[in-house]
Amino acid sequence: MTAEIITIGDEILIGQIVDTNSAYISEKLNAIGVRVGEIVSVSDNRAHILDTLKQASLRADILILTGGLGPTKDDITKHILAEFTGAKDWVLHQPSLAVVEEIITRRGLPMNELNRWQAMLPDTCEVLLNRLGTAPGMWFNYRGKVIVSMPGVPFEMQYIMQEVVEKLKTVFQLPPIYHKTITTYGIPESLLAERLASWEEKLPPHIKLAYLPNPQTGVRLRFSVYEPDSETANEVARQIEKLQNLLGNAIYGEGTDTLEIVLSRLLKEKNATLATAESCTGGKIASMITSVSGSSAYFRGGIIAYDNEVKINILGVDKTIIETHGAVSLEVVEQMALGARKTLCSDYAIATSGIAGPNGGTSQKPVGLVCIAVATPRGVISEQVNFTGNRPQIIERSAACALNLLRLELLK
Amino acid sequence: MTAEIITIGDEILIGQIVDTNSAYISEKLNAIGVRVGEIVSVSDNRAHILDTLKQASLRADILILTGGLGPTKDDITKHILAEFTGAKDWVLHQPSLAVVEEIITRRGLPMNELNRWQAMLPDTCEVLLNRLGTAPGMWFNYRGKVIVSMPGVPFEMQYIMQEVVEKLKTVFQLPPIYHKTITTYGIPESLLAERLASWEEKLPPHIKLAYLPNPQTGVRLRFSVYEPDSETANEVARQIEKLQNLLGNAIYGEGTDTLEIVLSRLLKEKNATLATAESCTGGKIASMITSVSGSSAYFRGGIIAYDNEVKINILGVDKTIIETHGAVSLEVVEQMALGARKTLCSDYAIATSGIAGPNGGTSQKPVGLVCIAVATPRGVISEQVNFTGNRPQIIERSAACALNLLRLELLK
Repeated sequence: MTAEIITIGDEILIGQIVDTNSAYISEKLNAIGVRVGEIVSVSDNRAHILDTLKQASLRADILILTGGLGPTKDDITKHILAEFTGAKDWVLHQPSLAVVEEIITRRGLPMNELNRWQAMLPDTCEVLLNRLGTAPGMWFNYRGKVIVSMPGVPFEMQYIMQEVVEKLKTVFQLPPIYHKTITTYGIPESLLAERLASWEEKLPPHIKLAYLPNPQTGVRLRFSVYEPDSETANEVARQIEKLQNLLGNAIYGEGTDTLEIVLSRLLKEKNATLATAESCTGGKIASMITSVSGSSAYFRGGIIAYDNEVKINILGVDKTIIETHGAVSLEVVEQMALGARKTLCSDYAIATSGIAGPNGGTSQKPVGLVCIAVATPRGVISEQVNFTGNRPQIIERSAACALNLLRLELLK
Repeated sequence: MTAEIITIGDEILIGQIVDTNSAYISEKLNAIGVRVGEIVSVSDNRAHILDTLKQASLRADILILTGGLGPTKDDITKHILAEFTGAKDWVLHQPSLAVVEEIITRRGLPMNELNRWQAMLPDTCEVLLNRLGTAPGMWFNYRGKVIVSMPGVPFEMQYIMQEVVEKLKTVFQLPPIYHKTITTYGIPESLLAERLASWEEKLPPHIKLAYLPNPQTGVRLRFSVYEPDSETANEVARQIEKLQNLLGNAIYGEGTDTLEIVLSRLLKEKNATLATAESCTGGKIASMITSVSGSSAYFRGGIIAYDNEVKINILGVDKTIIETHGAVSLEVVEQMALGARKTLCSDYAIATSGIAGPNGGTSQKPVGLVCIAVATPRGVISEQVNFTGNRPQIIERSAACALNLLRLELLK
């Protein structure tokens, strides 16, 4: 079973946005045993889109389109799909109209003809209800193929894609694939590959291993078994046990686990609370922690101490220590963590101070130098790390590193 | 002059990596007047790559390939390009061999045949020296077209792309394209389209307009003029003036401006400082503000007041007001903003309190209800907004809305 993905819109072709949708869709399709043969981006041009549809429908069983569904006149996908599938009429889809009306009303705006038009769909399609936006998805059964059209806004596409995946599983006989992913932090890909080389050589050939590196959050290891049987899950679990012996605490979770989700579990288990004191990460750590639903159960709050006066007045950092060691130092960051723990009345606290760049570096304290501390009921620990990358990368890497340091403390 | 981009490799098709190279290349090509007609990702499959090359060379003047140049056997681009361009022999490229040797030696590894093979290139190409990696770039003049092949590693590709851009400018007579983008916030796409309809109808036909919506940060409006002349910039400027009359302060910037970049400018102009007090946005606002290099000049810091005790003890919110009105209320968020301004000694302060969900909503205060306040030297203003979306979206939209509220205050 093969699919092709067609993304429509000039934004991608002029380099204004990066196409993240295709990777998302590919991953979801692969997980249910659909192979993606080609991904193509084309402009908002009628002839080009039609030609691409024709070519792709000659090769693939499933065509997935994203983009080109907005209410303005440069969005033409709906018209082209109506023409391509031989639609005879436009049909008002009441549930979609209700969503459009609700969204528009909630924004305090009057409905207009363009809004209403979004709920008009070709009579050749089944509607994939979009509860999160004004452009519905469409499912066409066309000459033994399936053509799906979704809006290009990532979270709307992701919402509709859930229904598409379920529908594809019922329409097609899909060969199952068994996937299991282990998440690691702290060992770069090349070193990880080296450390796992002899274990990897002994992997049974039907268990495929892929390294999925992410410079911010670490390397994920994905096991895949095509045509799995009743023994597959146990077989992979035994390999993961071996992996745990090799990697220890570098493994932090599985599947879609992130450091902040794992921390959420650990803090709840311990019935412990957390606070943050951030300088160079500027709120990024707190933002990651509070991205987890239910974080108010353990996260008390944080201080973003960008200015030294905030470090001194609110976190109680000793002014002379800043003068002696500089704001970016283990001494200061330890006091920040201890100060946050005390001021915000938490069991644990994370603190960061560093140089995110691009300016502000010196030969002694270059851009990328970051000090991280974790205060615990037992005291305070700290470390100094040199990160590479641009400003957002240094911030993200520092935040992940700090979360991991707290994780290791919580595991003790 | 048109180009097509072909990215080769299974990683993209199984959703393992997001293709950021194509957006980078597209932007560079657009800037020198080369229109990208199509971007396609294909697997490491000989027949498929050959077919894609053939099709693309029928349509475009320039083909840019990335990926499939590594030393392992699944990387086959070099062989296919040799075949496609009718190469008769392989030639050792000494400067590339020197780079490969240096890189391998630096890693403390011995040179092997696979490494050496990387410097062997088809006799039909000019070599584009890659100083940053082991796979050289290749430039083919093929039947009046140009075919370029570069490695898929982003920073190596970006290095070689500099040379490609310069070479393209000398080889082709490139017609420039004029682009100008205006950024707006606060008016949804469909309403914007309605409000601009009569102006848009009167746009000269050679000025193309595109709506580029982003649910978090607003709609960008892009003007494009193909074959611009000396009058184009003035012509577009006059249209933008008309747009300003229609949209007023909904326009916040141009090009790659974000709300946080515009705020940075406004605060520096006024020589004013800023602080934050965040509840539901959990550090997101501070994180956006500090993503701007140089933000330490005006950002003093922030308090993430997740727990009510933090609101009371650090921000000085009146406990009885929380009990009477609830933490998510205009009364509390105004006190938070005033408290942040006072505690952190800033001229301006932003505060948020809301229900980001998915839990915690009630019929009176549903998920998505967010209160936002801005304290200024003149007092405090606040507003209550209902956002749609999931947890991260509600957080992002609240943050953008809060930044915009501050922007409007700074413009007064």
